[in-house]
Amino acid sequence: MENSNSSIEGNNLRVRKLELSDKSKGFLELLRQLTVCDSVSDKEFEDRFKEISMYGDDHVICVIEDEISGKIIASGSVFIEKKFIRKCGKVGHIEDVVVDAGSRGMQLGKKIVGFLADHARSMGCYKVILDCSDGNKVFYEKCEFKKKEIQMLIYSFWWMNCVLMMYY
Amino acid sequence: MENSNSSIEGNNLRVRKLELSDKSKGFLELLRQLTVCDSVSDKEFEDRFKEISMYGDDHVICVIEDEISGKIIASGSVFIEKKFIRKCGKVGHIEDVVVDAGSRGMQLGKKIVGFLADHARSMGCYKVILDCSDGNKVFYEKCEFKKKEIQMLIYSFWWMNCVLMMYY
Repeated sequence: MENSNSSIEGNNLRVRKLELSDKSKGFLELLRQLTVCDSVSDKEFEDRFKEISMYGDDHVICVIEDEISGKIIASGSVFIEKKFIRKCGKVGHIEDVVVDAGSRGMQLGKKIVGFLADHARSMGCYKVILDCSDGNKVFYEKCEFKKKEIQMLIYSFWWMNCVLMMYY
Repeated sequence: MENSNSSIEGNNLRVRKLELSDKSKGFLELLRQLTVCDSVSDKEFEDRFKEISMYGDDHVICVIEDEISGKIIASGSVFIEKKFIRKCGKVGHIEDVVVDAGSRGMQLGKKIVGFLADHARSMGCYKVILDCSDGNKVFYEKCEFKKKEIQMLIYSFWWMNCVLMMYY
């Protein structure tokens, strides 16, 4: 019996670059499954889309669209950092990889990470890195990544105040 | 008795943005204390400098110059990633922080990290992140960073071949 997921269980899955119209296809709702992702106006979305697009191949956001439902069901991004070390080398930074909860178990995450890593390599990056929780380590190992360093973080004071105001 | 480090032990230390002329002030030799940093021609250096400069405040490399020796003795970089999550938020990524071995113990690393984190905040970043070894965790904690996630990495195949050819 065919079900509504038939399009994404076949070989017709396609990873493509984010398009402006993806806002209306649930792109932000998908990101909300990853972390806090407040609603933004069409204008705010378009402005950010244009800002990122200005970087061309140096900052790529990719998505997978379920062609039956018309919804964005997976996404991730990569930006290319230009360095002086390693003979003016480049490093790819993967961020914000997410797969819709209802579409898991179909290797979509692996497809997204593969697309982003391939893009970074095609841009001449000598390595590709990402930060993840301990819980996602096994997934990235399946994508052939290895644990290397630790991530350190500091929140901005104004941001912490916003978060506190939301909760108290 | 004054020594050759008197300029950097006083208050006349200044963190400033990287300049093209810093190549001749030992900038690459300093980076070599951090990791592999092959020599590059003046043209290659200038091309990379211009590429990074095109990003304006979105990618800043800062340095500290010892005004007596005229050498670059500390450096670090930060780039601003533009996201859709967190109401089209921004994240600062700190990279390649290094202090000359002969100039340690004078809080230069803290000055560099402070400068980069302040820059990221001034650009509206809600958080600033970096990856480091376990051995540098304590240093970044002194800079008020906290451990959060783990870094995963994959080298490019061509890069691994280059490394193998260097050693075998």
